[in-house]
Amino acid sequence: MRPAQMYTVCLLALVLVYPTEGRGLSKLWSIIDVDLLNSSTNTNTDDPVTYLWPMPKKSSNGNTTVAVDPDLVLAMQGNGCYSSLVRDAFARYKQIILSHHVKFSNQSGARQAQYGIGRLIITVSSADETLQLGTDESYSLYVPAHTEGSIIQDAMLEAKTVYGALRGLETFSQLCVFNFMTKNVEIANAPWDIQDEPRFGFRGLLIDTSRHYQPVEIIKQIIEAMSYAKLNVLHWHIIDEESFPLEVPSYPELWKGSYTGWERYTLDDARDIVEFAKSRGINVMAEIDVPGHAESWGVGYPDLWPSVDCREPLDVSKNFTFEVIASMLADLRKIFSFGLFHLGGDEVHTDCWTNSPKIKEWLDEHNMTAYDGYEYFVLRAQELAITQGWTPVNWEETFNAFSERLNPNTVVHNWLGSGVCPRAVAKGFKCIFSNQGVWYLDHLDVPWEKVYSSDPLEGIADASQQQLVIGGEVCMWGETADASDIQQTIWPRAAAAAERLWSTEDDTSNGLSTALPRLRNFRCVLNQRGIAAAPVTNELAREPPIGAGSCYMQ
Amino acid sequence: MRPAQMYTVCLLALVLVYPTEGRGLSKLWSIIDVDLLNSSTNTNTDDPVTYLWPMPKKSSNGNTTVAVDPDLVLAMQGNGCYSSLVRDAFARYKQIILSHHVKFSNQSGARQAQYGIGRLIITVSSADETLQLGTDESYSLYVPAHTEGSIIQDAMLEAKTVYGALRGLETFSQLCVFNFMTKNVEIANAPWDIQDEPRFGFRGLLIDTSRHYQPVEIIKQIIEAMSYAKLNVLHWHIIDEESFPLEVPSYPELWKGSYTGWERYTLDDARDIVEFAKSRGINVMAEIDVPGHAESWGVGYPDLWPSVDCREPLDVSKNFTFEVIASMLADLRKIFSFGLFHLGGDEVHTDCWTNSPKIKEWLDEHNMTAYDGYEYFVLRAQELAITQGWTPVNWEETFNAFSERLNPNTVVHNWLGSGVCPRAVAKGFKCIFSNQGVWYLDHLDVPWEKVYSSDPLEGIADASQQQLVIGGEVCMWGETADASDIQQTIWPRAAAAAERLWSTEDDTSNGLSTALPRLRNFRCVLNQRGIAAAPVTNELAREPPIGAGSCYMQ
Repeated sequence: MRPAQMYTVCLLALVLVYPTEGRGLSKLWSIIDVDLLNSSTNTNTDDPVTYLWPMPKKSSNGNTTVAVDPDLVLAMQGNGCYSSLVRDAFARYKQIILSHHVKFSNQSGARQAQYGIGRLIITVSSADETLQLGTDESYSLYVPAHTEGSIIQDAMLEAKTVYGALRGLETFSQLCVFNFMTKNVEIANAPWDIQDEPRFGFRGLLIDTSRHYQPVEIIKQIIEAMSYAKLNVLHWHIIDEESFPLEVPSYPELWKGSYTGWERYTLDDARDIVEFAKSRGINVMAEIDVPGHAESWGVGYPDLWPSVDCREPLDVSKNFTFEVIASMLADLRKIFSFGLFHLGGDEVHTDCWTNSPKIKEWLDEHNMTAYDGYEYFVLRAQELAITQGWTPVNWEETFNAFSERLNPNTVVHNWLGSGVCPRAVAKGFKCIFSNQGVWYLDHLDVPWEKVYSSDPLEGIADASQQQLVIGGEVCMWGETADASDIQQTIWPRAAAAAERLWSTEDDTSNGLSTALPRLRNFRCVLNQRGIAAAPVTNELAREPPIGAGSCYMQ
Repeated sequence: MRPAQMYTVCLLALVLVYPTEGRGLSKLWSIIDVDLLNSSTNTNTDDPVTYLWPMPKKSSNGNTTVAVDPDLVLAMQGNGCYSSLVRDAFARYKQIILSHHVKFSNQSGARQAQYGIGRLIITVSSADETLQLGTDESYSLYVPAHTEGSIIQDAMLEAKTVYGALRGLETFSQLCVFNFMTKNVEIANAPWDIQDEPRFGFRGLLIDTSRHYQPVEIIKQIIEAMSYAKLNVLHWHIIDEESFPLEVPSYPELWKGSYTGWERYTLDDARDIVEFAKSRGINVMAEIDVPGHAESWGVGYPDLWPSVDCREPLDVSKNFTFEVIASMLADLRKIFSFGLFHLGGDEVHTDCWTNSPKIKEWLDEHNMTAYDGYEYFVLRAQELAITQGWTPVNWEETFNAFSERLNPNTVVHNWLGSGVCPRAVAKGFKCIFSNQGVWYLDHLDVPWEKVYSSDPLEGIADASQQQLVIGGEVCMWGETADASDIQQTIWPRAAAAAERLWSTEDDTSNGLSTALPRLRNFRCVLNQRGIAAAPVTNELAREPPIGAGSCYMQ
């Protein structure tokens, strides 16, 4: 509720609804000052506001409040009616929706004679639970207004796929707000008629488990939070210079590069994460960054280093290097079913190649400069991924360096700055937007407004070229993000990007001026769900609140 | 594993166990440098270390490693064998212990022919699930070493009460470590023979839900984490100047002092929290701080303010004030069953009394100074709590100001500095230690060593007086602790206090020099369980990690 509304409503409410003993109206007026009203609260207002994040594509509503039955039941229809994924999701969301005890209100006598919404009917057209880029995530959600004599008591959620149903369940859960006065879960501003689908199919968050190991439990908490914001790709940057935490059965020494014997992921852990993410409608895009950012590979296999004293990039001159990559990809193919596989290729400094006599010799023999070696490496790695049936994603340096040689199906992952996707799509490449100036979450000085205002299609006017931008991704690099602070570094700014990626271009272009209370509300919803989202309006991300105060004002 | 051990073992292992192709031993030696070994990992060591936090009172162990059956079953005995509290706890701990997939290891062929521990037998002598100060929390835990031909496959946990069983389950869960090489959950250094009980019966953490509202979900996460460190009292400082978040049915306007209509707790929420805490063996000690720190009470009932312009302390001159307190206590009696109830009484500035003509008049009529009024207020509030069957706890100013008039059963809660409990117990009062110089968690510059080294009995030599110190409490004041950063402000320093309060005086007095790796390990365990515990060795609490690195080294 906006402060101005709150002022008016509370004033009205205080005067009309809550007479207090022993005080005349004149005294009441003198008591009511701005401080009081800023702190006085009353949810029985005539004009409750419903905040949804991200904003649905198309939405209309009324002005009736309906109560939700604490024994809300699920009915399923359509070819996807047997989906345990949807049933489990309903159980989870029911617990979220009913986290405050409405059922006890029977005992306290506050139960209404009849609840407005007693059942949620979910119709899923397709039984196919394939989750890939482009999987239909659309849904329509209808919440009736319960009126006298009306027999309509069902909310209706329809979707083509189970994943559309998940998105609709999230929206439904945000419509439901516990009213502390009536002790009921209520949906305000009914009836609701929402038809929603995302603007972009790829709405990602990168996590980096090399700079800091992230326990599986933490990764799951992050995935859970992503689902609240309708993000749908977890870009798992698994390995980097500092540590190699992943089990690779074909080359079991590789994870000797982990920090310790406990900061590791078995393939079963990875599978567990992928399955958990799928149950939230989130794909996991693994990244094996080569040939740079790979020093940790050599702890188990020092042959991969150019030399003991010069440990990156991976040794381009050895077949062994590519045997390792090939086997690793084969091992991972059983785990990562998402169609895109990220091969990195960023920040490749070739000095260790040219300074290593054997590698220099090899390059000369093959008439390659070190630069050519870089290209050769990337292309060979791409082929290995393609052999496994993946579409390769590479950081933009590969496009900047040798775009004409890159596999034409390559998805170019922009990060260095703006203006990259325009050039990539002009050459027919697909693109992912992650301009570090605006969407790198480890850049703590980028405020939410800047995140919100950045558009993946900036600089691209041609409609067919726009189609090639599959979406965007905020990146949570791990140098100073460990289990203690990762969530409040990610949130709420990742939510700003999430709306930019889900909601329409019209709505987000015009949405900045009204976004703050909505984002604050969403941040508080995240907190209520146990997610450590940081205050919205601090100067730097993840700072503590500056002092005591309401979640909705920080 | 200590670095020196790691060095030796890995050196040995590399030489003997992992020959690598194409390299002679001489090359191997030149490759092995400190960097490599610091990053190389091998959990198949001859000498794995088991870390328990807090340290058990009495513990002996062997040097055998036993594997835990992923289908570990529970058998219960004793009068308390029907306890669903224990069964539920076993289910939770089993999930924690088996968070990595051992069962998949059947498919990968790594399953051992026979697991060492297939069953945990829990014997609980008493069916009484009363949880109060002094409830027996002792337990003994026996984990056999599985040897050839041995038929012993049970771990045995015995306790007098279900709460001792909970403590034993926590210890058992810390014995279990997933081995990434064998893919089994293992207990190293078996057999284990642990007999444990706490040094102090009151081992508390204060949270403040007035400076920042803490969602119920966050409070539950905090309670969960407390149970891992065997803390057993949640001191819930519910209300203060800034906001009044709690439902008080007798005086329903009171929570108009909440920040917003959503930053509130119904009595059902409070009951939910108390029950959740009880299931973890944690009592909730509610605090209604009077007469100071109470400005927010007047938002709903301005009569409680000395005047509109001078809003604390609560108006001592009105019976209304004490009617409100009395009714509030009656409402809360149904929720807070813990024997102790905290009435605050700190930082009472009486200027608003003496500056308010009506109150000044009342004081004069009663031959009271403002100081006498303070005493009168505290004592009258104490009587109201005692009427409800509670034992009152008050902050130390009440003792410092009028100890001879305080109810003799009062528990004095030290906070201002050191030397207070000695004086309190010398006068026969019970005492809780929370010296702000060492145990206030919002003091970010107090390092874990200082927290660890502070003893509730400092300055008290007499054994019978020592008995009067019921324990201590770390305090997480909420001015800059909201849902985004509260857990990493609490942890790991609260764990340092938790060991001081649980483990023996001998062990903790001598424990500082060996505590760091143990505390780091416990911090990493918290992270693995999804708790955002901060790096241990940062200069200031709750800071991010300074850079990339292992959890065990930060």
